[in-house]
Amino acid sequence: MTQLLNNIHAVILAGGSGTRFWPLSRETCPKQMLQIVGEDTLIRQTIKRINGFVPPENIWIVTTEDKAQDIKFHLESLGPLAKKIQFIKEPLGRNTAPAIGLAAIYLNNLSPESIMVVMPSDHAIPDHEKFLNDLKLAIEGAKEDYLVTFGVKPNRPETGYGYIKIDNDPRVKLNGLHKVECFAEKPTIEKAKTYLSDGNYFWNSGIFVWKTSRILSEIEKHLPSLYQTLKEIESLLFITDKPNKSNKRSALCALCYASLESISIDYGIMERSADVLMVPATFQWSDLGSWTALDEVIEKDDSGNILKGNTIDIGSQNSIVFSGERLVATIGLKDMVVVDTPDATLVTTKDRVQEVRKIVDTLRQNGREEHLLHKTVERPWGSYTVLEKGEGYKIKRVALNPGAKLSLQLHRKRSEHWVVVSGVAKVTRDGETFLVHTNESTYIPVNTKHRLENPGEVPLQIIEVQNGDYVEEDDIERFDDIYGRT
Amino acid sequence: MTQLLNNIHAVILAGGSGTRFWPLSRETCPKQMLQIVGEDTLIRQTIKRINGFVPPENIWIVTTEDKAQDIKFHLESLGPLAKKIQFIKEPLGRNTAPAIGLAAIYLNNLSPESIMVVMPSDHAIPDHEKFLNDLKLAIEGAKEDYLVTFGVKPNRPETGYGYIKIDNDPRVKLNGLHKVECFAEKPTIEKAKTYLSDGNYFWNSGIFVWKTSRILSEIEKHLPSLYQTLKEIESLLFITDKPNKSNKRSALCALCYASLESISIDYGIMERSADVLMVPATFQWSDLGSWTALDEVIEKDDSGNILKGNTIDIGSQNSIVFSGERLVATIGLKDMVVVDTPDATLVTTKDRVQEVRKIVDTLRQNGREEHLLHKTVERPWGSYTVLEKGEGYKIKRVALNPGAKLSLQLHRKRSEHWVVVSGVAKVTRDGETFLVHTNESTYIPVNTKHRLENPGEVPLQIIEVQNGDYVEEDDIERFDDIYGRT
Repeated sequence: MTQLLNNIHAVILAGGSGTRFWPLSRETCPKQMLQIVGEDTLIRQTIKRINGFVPPENIWIVTTEDKAQDIKFHLESLGPLAKKIQFIKEPLGRNTAPAIGLAAIYLNNLSPESIMVVMPSDHAIPDHEKFLNDLKLAIEGAKEDYLVTFGVKPNRPETGYGYIKIDNDPRVKLNGLHKVECFAEKPTIEKAKTYLSDGNYFWNSGIFVWKTSRILSEIEKHLPSLYQTLKEIESLLFITDKPNKSNKRSALCALCYASLESISIDYGIMERSADVLMVPATFQWSDLGSWTALDEVIEKDDSGNILKGNTIDIGSQNSIVFSGERLVATIGLKDMVVVDTPDATLVTTKDRVQEVRKIVDTLRQNGREEHLLHKTVERPWGSYTVLEKGEGYKIKRVALNPGAKLSLQLHRKRSEHWVVVSGVAKVTRDGETFLVHTNESTYIPVNTKHRLENPGEVPLQIIEVQNGDYVEEDDIERFDDIYGRT
Repeated sequence: MTQLLNNIHAVILAGGSGTRFWPLSRETCPKQMLQIVGEDTLIRQTIKRINGFVPPENIWIVTTEDKAQDIKFHLESLGPLAKKIQFIKEPLGRNTAPAIGLAAIYLNNLSPESIMVVMPSDHAIPDHEKFLNDLKLAIEGAKEDYLVTFGVKPNRPETGYGYIKIDNDPRVKLNGLHKVECFAEKPTIEKAKTYLSDGNYFWNSGIFVWKTSRILSEIEKHLPSLYQTLKEIESLLFITDKPNKSNKRSALCALCYASLESISIDYGIMERSADVLMVPATFQWSDLGSWTALDEVIEKDDSGNILKGNTIDIGSQNSIVFSGERLVATIGLKDMVVVDTPDATLVTTKDRVQEVRKIVDTLRQNGREEHLLHKTVERPWGSYTVLEKGEGYKIKRVALNPGAKLSLQLHRKRSEHWVVVSGVAKVTRDGETFLVHTNESTYIPVNTKHRLENPGEVPLQIIEVQNGDYVEEDDIERFDDIYGRT
């Protein structure tokens, strides 16, 4: 049994940008990194769900290169487990078929007889035990060389999900696994009602289990050009006898990957394959496809509202109000969603919540910043919060965890004043090292190598006032960094 | 004619707290101090409307003692005019009849034959010229010893205003002034429709003109106990032959005033008096009674929306979105009001906009601060903005106008770090005086007398980091203040 589990790999897809949860999600903080339901963020919940069932070193995060570092930092709170989790980095996003193909190539080379469990990183599955029980069933199917998926019994005529239709003939049922007759795209409301009453339709959960060898042969059959490219990438990554050329090989891989067609695994493989089985999920599930999905996973008050954070409401109904520290006061809302963050607020009717993508598009087109970064940015050493940016200055609150240490760095275009408001700072400035206590301050001139550390056992907070004509994050030269960012 | 105008006094009622425009209005920044329509704030527009028609020293602001200083600072931008405007301070708010009675007592003593023009400070009247023309007519009526009011011809069945019914008999018409038959309270929608079609009903604008002697005799007749108290106050203020007892007399006045019944001039006098005339207003008017009143005074876009500030909208209709620097994104709103400020956001349906009072009540009951102060507070020397308040610290951006000078002051419980981000600061600290340039900083320890000045000709901006267990505004001892605040 131990042998078996060592051969099972969890492949967590974490490339999504999650614009549908704007303004809470941002490019640098996509949906999987949000704690919108449950005790932890969605990706950390996903990892906790599978951890222990497979060894930590068999947990793989597939994401794009630009997101990998942020996600890595984000997972650090998982402790020693985080260090064992491995990353497969896509040069850029190309939908699920290429991402899964890339993971299959990796695993097939590192562990040829392996079974991969493909899981989105941003879904809600509150009951981990039920999930693992169903997963065991799926693995049995995968061992028999089937492609196995999970179907969720619908409880409403949902138009936001794809459907799986099973063949209900008992002769094709295999130990609780159903033969899949076909996949159906997101339906109209009329069709969704038929599906619901039919009883043989299930929601497509996007969770899959199969042998790496089997998915690769399916890709070879149904997506030959993807297969071709994956083989090229494989030869660059694994079948090379010329060492010390890794940079060049990476660049070639990136070129290959960029040339791929964006296509989902559902459309590219699942709908075309003949050997698909489905486990009817016993667990509760939501893909959290939009703000209104919260209605399915969070308990509502007597008026059907979900009110979170600093809110005061008078007489609203069936509405979602998400706030942080700022006050959001609502009166008489019906079927609305209000989401507040320090720099942006969204107010929309529930039936148009999908159009939040258009808001994000507008922000992108107009060169704005509200879709990129939050005012508070998590870092491996703690976090910083931009309190204000004005002409020639920027003010940040910087919070360092005990023992944390920023990189040894230098700014070409700005000086910095630091005022310690709690804890004790250890400051290195131009070779000299000294302590700065609460209610003391220090100054870092331009072009001066410096470093900030928290040598204490309590959190350190400083207020940083940056002065200069240019006060952007990219004015930084790193010389030494304990988090590998030089 | 000059003689006449010198005898006319403008009495501007500015005691309102304006909770109905929360979160834009606050206790320290009531509606009259907001620029929600037109080129300036409502109270400054009111003053500009009458200035020139009466001499500046005949402009009187009636407000409560706690609001007087904020309003005084607020008017400073009017320049030399501001210094001539006089204040009549109510010890506390007691509705319009006592406020007008108090002003009548003042004027009757200082200028016995005077006519007073009573104007709310927070109404919208865009056309000053038409207003002054109508006012001339009203003054003619007042000279004949009538109580004169202004009625606005309704263009919709408004339920938010009181109405005036005129006697349409041409025999009682006096040079364009109509005899008033009766006053009517805010009607139901059915009644409002009848009033609209009747043609003899006008909106009660709350603007009045009369001789001080006449209004006092009406008060004597209809509100004898108010009259009695006003006479007591008069004897304390004007008919005393014991000087140097002004503090005691003020305290007695306050006691008298506090004992008064809260009653409006409409209910207390206008509805009961037999000699009321009405000028049919030729000017456009709104009392700006709630956020939805903006629909009457601000031009809407093709979808019936009013969008102001940093907003992005997709497909909303007949909605009002008021934002400042923060982004407010709206999708598919219908008949809604969204108002955003740095620390609080209101989202309400238009038909329940009056309930914003309940939100303010809740804040007051819960000891919150979002109804008291804005994050940015205007001061006679410039303004300050609270950027963040945390445990043991507070961060402010302080902006000083050229030549401005804060008071010489001292804090018992906090130290302050100042970083200059633009301009040059002149700092006095413990007797020593020095300059601090952009990108330099200084430190003010606890219990240290200090003063901040802007000696330059460009604005000065500093970032102030306060450190201490107690960082509230009331930890200040002032020793010298050019704005009279010691």
